[in-house]
Amino acid sequence: MSNINLDYTNVLKFITQEDINKYSDVVKENHSRLRGKSGVGCEFTDWIDYPFCYDKQEFDNIKKATQYINENADAMIVLGIGGSYLGARAVIEALTPTFSKTNSNTKIYYAGNNISSKYIKQLIEEVKDKSLCINVISKSGTTLETSIAFRIFKDLMEKKYGKEEAKNRIFVTTDKEKGVLKNIANTEGYMTFTVPDGICGRYSVLTSVGLLPISVAGINIDELIKGAQDMANILNNENLNENSAYLYAVIRNILYNNGKKIEIMANYDSSLKYFTKWCTQLFNESEGKEGKGIYFSTVENTTDLHSIGQYIQQSERIIFETVLNVEQDTFPYIIEHTSIDDGLEYIEGKTLDYINKKAMEGTIVAHVDGQVPNLKINIPILKEYYIGQLVYYFQTVAAMSGYILGINPFNQPGVEDYKKNMFKLLGKTNV
Amino acid sequence: MSNINLDYTNVLKFITQEDINKYSDVVKENHSRLRGKSGVGCEFTDWIDYPFCYDKQEFDNIKKATQYINENADAMIVLGIGGSYLGARAVIEALTPTFSKTNSNTKIYYAGNNISSKYIKQLIEEVKDKSLCINVISKSGTTLETSIAFRIFKDLMEKKYGKEEAKNRIFVTTDKEKGVLKNIANTEGYMTFTVPDGICGRYSVLTSVGLLPISVAGINIDELIKGAQDMANILNNENLNENSAYLYAVIRNILYNNGKKIEIMANYDSSLKYFTKWCTQLFNESEGKEGKGIYFSTVENTTDLHSIGQYIQQSERIIFETVLNVEQDTFPYIIEHTSIDDGLEYIEGKTLDYINKKAMEGTIVAHVDGQVPNLKINIPILKEYYIGQLVYYFQTVAAMSGYILGINPFNQPGVEDYKKNMFKLLGKTNV
Repeated sequence: MSNINLDYTNVLKFITQEDINKYSDVVKENHSRLRGKSGVGCEFTDWIDYPFCYDKQEFDNIKKATQYINENADAMIVLGIGGSYLGARAVIEALTPTFSKTNSNTKIYYAGNNISSKYIKQLIEEVKDKSLCINVISKSGTTLETSIAFRIFKDLMEKKYGKEEAKNRIFVTTDKEKGVLKNIANTEGYMTFTVPDGICGRYSVLTSVGLLPISVAGINIDELIKGAQDMANILNNENLNENSAYLYAVIRNILYNNGKKIEIMANYDSSLKYFTKWCTQLFNESEGKEGKGIYFSTVENTTDLHSIGQYIQQSERIIFETVLNVEQDTFPYIIEHTSIDDGLEYIEGKTLDYINKKAMEGTIVAHVDGQVPNLKINIPILKEYYIGQLVYYFQTVAAMSGYILGINPFNQPGVEDYKKNMFKLLGKTNV
Repeated sequence: MSNINLDYTNVLKFITQEDINKYSDVVKENHSRLRGKSGVGCEFTDWIDYPFCYDKQEFDNIKKATQYINENADAMIVLGIGGSYLGARAVIEALTPTFSKTNSNTKIYYAGNNISSKYIKQLIEEVKDKSLCINVISKSGTTLETSIAFRIFKDLMEKKYGKEEAKNRIFVTTDKEKGVLKNIANTEGYMTFTVPDGICGRYSVLTSVGLLPISVAGINIDELIKGAQDMANILNNENLNENSAYLYAVIRNILYNNGKKIEIMANYDSSLKYFTKWCTQLFNESEGKEGKGIYFSTVENTTDLHSIGQYIQQSERIIFETVLNVEQDTFPYIIEHTSIDDGLEYIEGKTLDYINKKAMEGTIVAHVDGQVPNLKINIPILKEYYIGQLVYYFQTVAAMSGYILGINPFNQPGVEDYKKNMFKLLGKTNV
C-alpha cells in the first residue's frame, strides 16, 4: 500500500508547474532551517524528531496507565482545551466506531474545553453511575477552562471514591517540573506525564498529551508512532518535487498570493470530522498572524454540499478546496435490489463507498469547473499507521507553509489578548 | 422579558450610523417586495406568513403522530439532508440535554445526510435492540443520500416488524401530490406530511419538515410557532432603524462592501452548535451566488478561542463576527471553595455562566481592538418561544440581506452541478 500522498493535478488548471518550481530554492532554505532547528520559532520544533527520540520510559508508563484505566473505568474524562484536546479527539474519532467512539471498555468524555454550565452539569449527570478516571492536560495549569473543570471533577472524584482511591484515578499531563498543576500533582501524589518543553499544543498529538487518551481509547500507539516515523523520513527531503508536504505548502502560498483567502477542507467520511478540526487549529493558529494567513475552514460531505455547497460552487472565487480521500473502504455495504420503485436501480449491486466516491469525483469536477482549485490528499485506509503519517504530514505542511508566508508558525501571540481582558473583567489581580 | 435583539454598538467603531441610514429607502423597497411577495424568488416566500396560515389539521396530525411515536419507539431515525435535516436538528439540540438530546422517551438519530458506509452500518448496529420509527423527508424523493438511506431502513423495518407493522412506523414528509416518495407512500400506505410548495428547504424548519422530528423530541411546537408569529409581527416594519433584522442585513452588506469577506458566528453555549450550522446553510445557500456573497462560518467558544482564535485576532482584516449571547443561565453552577492551591480563588462564589459571560465580553473587546467589527444577537433564554423568534429572525435577515446584495435568496442553482456529474459517473441515464 502506498503512503499518504497529494494529488494536485486539479491545481494545475489554475497555476503552472513553473510557478511551483520557482519556490525550489526557498523550500531548500526553509527545509534546512526547519530540520536544522535554526529558523524562527525553532525553540518549538522538537516535534520534528520526537517520533524517534521520545521518552521510552514515559511511553511504557502510558501503556501501564492505560491498562489500569481500562480495567477500572467505564469512562475517562479528558480535561484540556486547544492543543491539549483536539489532537487526541481527532485521532480517537478517526479510528473508533461512530457511536461508541472507543475501541476499549473505557468511553472517553471531554471537558475543560468550555465554560458552559449546561455542559458541565449534564456531564456530571451523564457519568454519575460510571466508574471514572480523569486525565487533566495543561502545560502551565493556569488555563481557565481546564482549571475550572479540574477543580470540579477532582472534587467529584474525591466525593465518589474518597481521597485515597481518587488519587489512583487521576492522571496529570503537565510541565515536567513547574507550574500550578505540577505542584498539585506533587502534593496529592498523582501519576504525571510530561508536556514537552519544545513542542507547542497543536504539534503535541504524538506526545503524552495526545497519547494517553488515545491509548485509553484502545488505539495502538506503537503503530501511530511508526507511521509518524516513516513520514518523518519520507519528508526529510529538500527537493520540492519529491516532497508532497512541501508541494502542498508551496501551492497554498501561491493560491493565497493569487487571492484565494479561504481554504476549505472537505472530508467524505464523518470519522474525520475532528481530524479536520485539528487541522483547523493547526493552520489558523500557525499562520493567522501579522495581518496574513489563509482562513482554514471545513466541510463534511456529502452533508454540506446541501449547505455550503452553493457558496463553494458560485460565490466569489476566493476559495480553494482540499479533499481528504480515504481510499479503502473498511465497511463494505452493498445496495440490494428492492421491489419498490424508488428510482435507484442504477446503483443496485454497488457499495455505498463506491457511490460516495462518485459523489466526491463529481463534486471535484463541478468545483474545478466552477474555478475552485482542488487538492486531494489520499489516505490509503483509516488505520493507526496512516493516521500517524497524516499527523506528521500536516504538521510539516503547516510549518513549511508558515515559513514561506514569512511568519513564525510555532507561536500564538494573539491568543493572549482575550485572556487579558477576561482576567481583568473577572478581577484577577496577578495577571 | 425582551425579544431577540441586536446590539451593533461595536460595529459603529467601523462604520457610521449615517452609512446605515443611507439604506433606508432600499430597505423600504425590499420590505415591500418581500412582504408583498413581488420580489425575485417570490414563489418561495410562503415562509413569511406561514406561522399564521399553516394547515391546522396537519399540525394536529403531527401531535398525534408524536404521541404514537413516543409511545412506541425508543428511537426515531430522521432521514433527510440540507434543509430537510439541519433545521430540525438545530432546534432539537438547542432545547434538549447535551448527552441524550431529547426531552421525550424517543431518541432522535439522523441518516440520509451522507453516503458513509461506516456511518450507516454502525447506525444499524446502534439501533438494533431499540424499538424504532422512521421519518423520511424529501420534497421530490430523488435526493440520492436520503433515497439510499430510505431503501436501507425501510428494508430494516420490514425485516424487524413485518410489512404491516412497519407501515405504522414509517412517516413520510414529502410533496403533497407527486414524486417518487409520494408514490411509495401511497402504495405502501404510510402516513404522510407535506413539504409546502412555496418554501425552500432552508426556510422550512417551522413546517412539517422540521416540526415532526422536533415534536417527537418532546419540544413544544405551539410555543415555537408563537415565537415565530410574534417575531413576524415585530419585523413587519419597513423602518430600518426600528427593524433589527433589517439593520443586521444592512450592516453585513456594508461590511461586505468594505472588504469583510467572512462572517464568523460565535456561540458560547454548545447547545447552539447546530443552530449556527443551520445559519451556515441559510446564509451561504441564500447569498453565495453570481460571484458574490459573504462566506459564513462558525466557531464554538470558548473552545475555538484556542483554535481559530489566533486567526481572528491577528490575521487579514477580512472578517467580522456575530455573537449569539444567551442572556439567562438555566443551569446555575457555583464555583465552590477548595483547599488546593489552583489559583482560582478570584472566581469562587461565581457561577460558571458569569465566568463564561466575562470570557465573551473580554473576547469581544479583544476582537474589536483587533479591528474585527462585532455584532451581538441577544437571546433572552433558550426556550421554545425564543428559538421560534430566532428562526424567523434569521430567515428575515437572510432574505433582506440577499435582496440588498442583488441576488435571489430563495434559489440554489449551484447545488445541481455536482449532482449532474455524480449521476453521470454513476451511470444514471434519466438525469
